[in-house]
Amino acid sequence: MPQVKTSLGTTVLLVFDLLATLLVALEGGSAGVLSHLDFFGVLVVAFVSALGGGIVRDLLIGATPPNAIRDWRYGTTALAGGGLTILSFQSFQAVPHELLLTLDAAGLALFAVAGADKAVEFGVPPLIACLMGAVTGSGGGVIRDLLLNRVPAILHSDIYATAALSGAVVTVALLRRGANRGGSMGAGAVICFTLRMLAVHYGWSLPHVR
Amino acid sequence: MPQVKTSLGTTVLLVFDLLATLLVALEGGSAGVLSHLDFFGVLVVAFVSALGGGIVRDLLIGATPPNAIRDWRYGTTALAGGGLTILSFQSFQAVPHELLLTLDAAGLALFAVAGADKAVEFGVPPLIACLMGAVTGSGGGVIRDLLLNRVPAILHSDIYATAALSGAVVTVALLRRGANRGGSMGAGAVICFTLRMLAVHYGWSLPHVR
Amino acid sequence: MPQVKTSLGTTVLLVFDLLATLLVALEGGSAGVLSHLDFFGVLVVAFVSALGGGIVRDLLIGATPPNAIRDWRYGTTALAGGGLTILSFQSFQAVPHELLLTLDAAGLALFAVAGADKAVEFGVPPLIACLMGAVTGSGGGVIRDLLLNRVPAILHSDIYATAALSGAVVTVALLRRGANRGGSMGAGAVICFTLRMLAVHYGWSLPHVR
Repeated sequence: MPQVKTSLGTTVLLVFDLLATLLVALEGGSAGVLSHLDFFGVLVVAFVSALGGGIVRDLLIGATPPNAIRDWRYGTTALAGGGLTILSFQSFQAVPHELLLTLDAAGLALFAVAGADKAVEFGVPPLIACLMGAVTGSGGGVIRDLLLNRVPAILHSDIYATAALSGAVVTVALLRRGANRGGSMGAGAVICFTLRMLAVHYGWSLPHVR
Repeated sequence: MPQVKTSLGTTVLLVFDLLATLLVALEGGSAGVLSHLDFFGVLVVAFVSALGGGIVRDLLIGATPPNAIRDWRYGTTALAGGGLTILSFQSFQAVPHELLLTLDAAGLALFAVAGADKAVEFGVPPLIACLMGAVTGSGGGVIRDLLLNRVPAILHSDIYATAALSGAVVTVALLRRGANRGGSMGAGAVICFTLRMLAVHYGWSLPHVR
Repeated sequence: MPQVKTSLGTTVLLVFDLLATLLVALEGGSAGVLSHLDFFGVLVVAFVSALGGGIVRDLLIGATPPNAIRDWRYGTTALAGGGLTILSFQSFQAVPHELLLTLDAAGLALFAVAGADKAVEFGVPPLIACLMGAVTGSGGGVIRDLLLNRVPAILHSDIYATAALSGAVVTVALLRRGANRGGSMGAGAVICFTLRMLAVHYGWSLPHVR
């Protein structure tokens, strides 16, 4: 297992990662409230929305126990997001939709490139590392949708996982060409974020087979 | 991986664990029958209801292969429960509902505290160990509900996973204060069982966000 | 972890395994198209249909990272199947149904006995090795059905997982009696294929509890 280096970069990444975790937990918890779950159900859905993608990635690449299980800060942050949703669901409804979508796109970008980077470090093939980026970014939402008994949104509408995948591809490609980690992740994140925001703004979605 | 000590306590725990496995398999199998599954489907649902929670816990804490896979007695017991359901579904309908609920609460308590105890032994953080207790107790029911294409019951009604979580919290807290294993698990189990029975008796359920 | 021996037998097995992967990916992708998924969703469903069963088996027996993640040829083949589905869905509709069912039965047989064989090599108990054969053969279809929000077909209709299980039982029994690997897998595959084709031809299905 690779050493985890503690440095300024790692600390900054951790802070952003926890912020993204909190945000996605708030979104997941809100989906739970809208599906008439009870308090416990809201906490569960907040938890799996925020951490499910990373947990599945870690199980698949063999990084067990998954980081979200080993490091108490992630579970605490995700549950705090669920608790906040319960306490102030009404207030969240007042947050402008555009702001939420922008923050969510930023979280998606971070999850996707960090997930791809971790998969590369664990030595999985490049194709799989790219898929792991997409899984990290959008896997939590898939589990959330399964729990809420609906076909996962990423499978039939919108450009979401595709943006995550694009960012992951850029990151993996740059890492393999020897680019430094920060630059590779930064470039991938910009691509993912931009693609997602363009899709939201212009209402893009992927084609369907006729 | 920690050594498994064979002692009287371990043997007693194993017997109760297998009894709980059988009971939960019977309940799961019955849910399968009521959902019009065929014989094979009933066996599958019995198996995952009884063993799914423990398997997910073991995957998450890194105890692979999961105990339910490594130890043939669990799979055999769960499938026997499914087979019994097929053979005598009509008779089970005659069992008083109160008795079933009481036995189920006892099984839940056992699974929850044993699951939390195992997670502590594997060195995961206390918060996660508590969650693992809840996963062990109620994870099988979640997988069962997903297979039967419905929103998992624990997410929207009743006090079930919350009781498992409460028992797990007590067990983890006592273990961390240095209490012995039997006492910690016993106290947690009593809390879980009592809370669950009170919830059943008084029709308690968790609040929903309005 | 057992050594993987490269030999003629292994190469032949690999070729058949990749062919079966491609076929199951085409079938899974088609199910995705029929459920109105977008291009990305079709690729996802093709991937999990073809590789999900093997991935779950590997997670359960502790063979992490799963082979489908470690070996880029599987992911590439599954995604190629999904891509082909998108490009030529209309043409697939013209393939005679009987041919598809026959090829699918062959793929099922191969997945089931190869899955059981791998589980035996990893030293899990015989009962569990048989179940792992059934999981390898039919697990991908279960995940596909969950993603498409329906009760997994193998739980309520048809003889499919039961055929996989039968083939796995034969393979595991022969391996334990010291028969050679090729013969054990061949005999199991013949049993699985024959049972499946008989079930298709005569419209057999498993009984339900009344």
